[in-house]
Amino acid sequence: MLFHVTMDVDIPRDLDPAERADTVAREKAYSQDLQRQGKWPHIWRVVGQYSNVSIFDVESADEMHEILWALPLFPFMTVQVTPLCRHPSAI
Amino acid sequence: MLFHVTMDVDIPRDLDPAERADTVAREKAYSQDLQRQGKWPHIWRVVGQYSNVSIFDVESADEMHEILWALPLFPFMTVQVTPLCRHPSAI
Amino acid sequence: MLFHVTMDVDIPRDLDPAERADTVAREKAYSQDLQRQGKWPHIWRVVGQYSNVSIFDVESADEMHEILWALPLFPFMTVQVTPLCRHPSAI
Amino acid sequence: MLFHVTMDVDIPRDLDPAERADTVAREKAYSQDLQRQGKWPHIWRVVGQYSNVSIFDVESADEMHEILWALPLFPFMTVQVTPLCRHPSAI
Amino acid sequence: MLFHVTMDVDIPRDLDPAERADTVAREKAYSQDLQRQGKWPHIWRVVGQYSNVSIFDVESADEMHEILWALPLFPFMTVQVTPLCRHPSAI
Amino acid sequence: MLFHVTMDVDIPRDLDPAERADTVAREKAYSQDLQRQGKWPHIWRVVGQYSNVSIFDVESADEMHEILWALPLFPFMTVQVTPLCRHPSAI
Amino acid sequence: MLFHVTMDVDIPRDLDPAERADTVAREKAYSQDLQRQGKWPHIWRVVGQYSNVSIFDVESADEMHEILWALPLFPFMTVQVTPLCRHPSAI
Amino acid sequence: MLFHVTMDVDIPRDLDPAERADTVAREKAYSQDLQRQGKWPHIWRVVGQYSNVSIFDVESADEMHEILWALPLFPFMTVQVTPLCRHPSAI
Amino acid sequence: MLFHVTMDVDIPRDLDPAERADTVAREKAYSQDLQRQGKWPHIWRVVGQYSNVSIFDVESADEMHEILWALPLFPFMTVQVTPLCRHPSAI
Amino acid sequence: MLFHVTMDVDIPRDLDPAERADTVAREKAYSQDLQRQGKWPHIWRVVGQYSNVSIFDVESADEMHEILWALPLFPFMTVQVTPLCRHPSAI
Repeated sequence: MLFHVTMDVDIPRDLDPAERADTVAREKAYSQDLQRQGKWPHIWRVVGQYSNVSIFDVESADEMHEILWALPLFPFMTVQVTPLCRHPSAI
Repeated sequence: MLFHVTMDVDIPRDLDPAERADTVAREKAYSQDLQRQGKWPHIWRVVGQYSNVSIFDVESADEMHEILWALPLFPFMTVQVTPLCRHPSAI
Repeated sequence: MLFHVTMDVDIPRDLDPAERADTVAREKAYSQDLQRQGKWPHIWRVVGQYSNVSIFDVESADEMHEILWALPLFPFMTVQVTPLCRHPSAI
Repeated sequence: MLFHVTMDVDIPRDLDPAERADTVAREKAYSQDLQRQGKWPHIWRVVGQYSNVSIFDVESADEMHEILWALPLFPFMTVQVTPLCRHPSAI
Repeated sequence: MLFHVTMDVDIPRDLDPAERADTVAREKAYSQDLQRQGKWPHIWRVVGQYSNVSIFDVESADEMHEILWALPLFPFMTVQVTPLCRHPSAI
Repeated sequence: MLFHVTMDVDIPRDLDPAERADTVAREKAYSQDLQRQGKWPHIWRVVGQYSNVSIFDVESADEMHEILWALPLFPFMTVQVTPLCRHPSAI
Repeated sequence: MLFHVTMDVDIPRDLDPAERADTVAREKAYSQDLQRQGKWPHIWRVVGQYSNVSIFDVESADEMHEILWALPLFPFMTVQVTPLCRHPSAI
Repeated sequence: MLFHVTMDVDIPRDLDPAERADTVAREKAYSQDLQRQGKWPHIWRVVGQYSNVSIFDVESADEMHEILWALPLFPFMTVQVTPLCRHPSAI
Repeated sequence: MLFHVTMDVDIPRDLDPAERADTVAREKAYSQDLQRQGKWPHIWRVVGQYSNVSIFDVESADEMHEILWALPLFPFMTVQVTPLCRHPSAI
Repeated sequence: MLFHVTMDVDIPRDLDPAERADTVAREKAYSQDLQRQGKWPHIWRVVGQYSNVSIFDVESADEMHEILWALPLFPFMTVQVTPLCRHPSAI
């Protein structure tokens, strides 16, 4: 099943720079692993924002929650989740 | 260039049923033609809403506007347009 | 899978009274049929509102959309859909 | 009487980790005790959020307030309370 | 139990004047009957608005809903309901 | 003259516990004194919130402001003030 | 006592032109009469809006309500009322 | 002096088509005349909206209001006006 | 030209008390100087808020900006600026 | 292609004054360099705000994002980006 997810990132200024760099690197690796598995088929940057728009293709709502909850940047994100389905005009 | 577009449709109750059916049919044909051209690569239905989330891949902002303005259902839509760019974590 | 759905109803004043009564009756029958099937396990009235809060238990996001789209009162409703999953503290 | 309650949790980053773990553990025990008593019949996680949707079945508005006020995580929660009643279509 | 209720009234311009006058008169009688019963102990006009702020003292959430649902002006009102309880500083 | 006032309290976590306890105690005494004088005839707790809904009966807008400004918890409150007048249906 | 009032006017398109002209003329006369009495000491147009910002100086909240309720354009206005008092820096 | 103005247009569906076409034509002529006079130096279309973003360079706030009030489409517009001044980083 | 300005003040709790007192005193002197010059003809306190509503009468938008930017409390204010013009009903 | 961008700046009070001054100076130089290149053709100050309204003329959405992301004050800004196109009434 498909979910549309937006993630707005706001890393606190006082986060230790090494922890920040490590968290961002782990986020990237985590995302790319899920992209390779086909669970995170699309991720786009929103112009001018520290935000992305993503599409997830997962087995269940529980799996969707577990993936998001485990994002290394999750504590610093505002997340919006919208369930999608097939559009009758899609070819 | 890529745009993320949401379209919320609200067709007036008093629209003539034949005109309604014709407009919806023309909307579908118009969308599918643009999908086949590769300009409208994704369209999803939002669960429980008369709304879609779409991704467009067009030459310019002017082309994006012309495509949306010409949607048969445009007069009955609330449209939100967000410019996208490549995400640094995208594979 | 579980969805939390709120439905706010606003039937236009100028709807023919017989059509109104028929639509409300069909809505009730439709809801009760889904309740009996176990797909709509909870429905509550919000105090002081022509609104309900409901829980649905369906096979997929597509089924959720089809159920909502087919509600007799759907054209007169504002619907909000929130996907749910198991809470770690639930017994 | 029934209340629909949403709880959005936002634990401050600088809370002592031991205090955080203890508070979360006490919250879970407190919730499960009320679930076993039948006062908190439903709790669901909202997908992608540190939030829950809950249904409470209590004797009075005062009891509802006392239960929420005593939640170990209450100081870190945004709470919304909606009174419910029987829906005329409920079977 | 106590509820705080706000009612914002917006009577459509095209309502028949006799029906309007009759509905407003029935609203007044209905309110005064409930005030005399002690179920609607307070009603105030909000300055500059066709709105009131009211306090209700009823047996249950179901009774609260039935009272509001039966207001002659209910179809033309936006209603907000907030459950109240005793304040620890109240004398 | 009558004012409807809502007060939402948010005491900072890092306030010294003794100062917190003292401020809350002074708030209670201040409120009860005004209740006894008849200037603060109603105060209710909002269920599930660190908030109250109050009715004040004062000589003037200036007196209303002075009373609120002097609340011991004022620096930690979000306050909303609505002027009331007699409702034509009040008995 | 002083009130700050904003009035946003939205006259329906289908109002009879003679009734519209008459209502606007009565509004002007009504306003100017209150200005001459000193009860409506300031009225300004908001640039680019069919709106005004006004200051009223009245005896009571009841008088403020009666003045606004009797505005010929009141049925077509959205009104916001804010009570004012003396500012400690005012000379 | 400079003003930033956004105009969102919503022409009612039931406007007579000839009146609609005439109003739109007069709006265009009116705008182009002001552009030629240098009073309306910039006008852009917002992608996907029946809206524009404009910059005006006028003598006074009164002139700004008169220009907007006289727009042929003014009755069908939502207008936002923001006063601008020189930016210290502008070259 | 006239501007309507609202200023909501929120001085951080951790500001040094002497700096706080000095800033508030400088704000008062600054305001009274501009009032005496006729540039700040009205300032009112909003009941129950650390806010004012003010009217400014200045030469230009640039002067308006410079006056606001130089307010001693400006870093702790949320400011809203609305340009005003003569109302056709003003006497 | 053209973008309309608003930037609201909120520099934390506890930023080191030298770092603050340096960041603001680098922001100014960065902006003026892009203005000279023709990529940032307009920047205006919003009256009474630490905000600007800007127009950018860039090659692509990716270039727009890179320019904004590299603003020295970007971490302290709230940015809104709106794609523009040619208006049919523009001369």
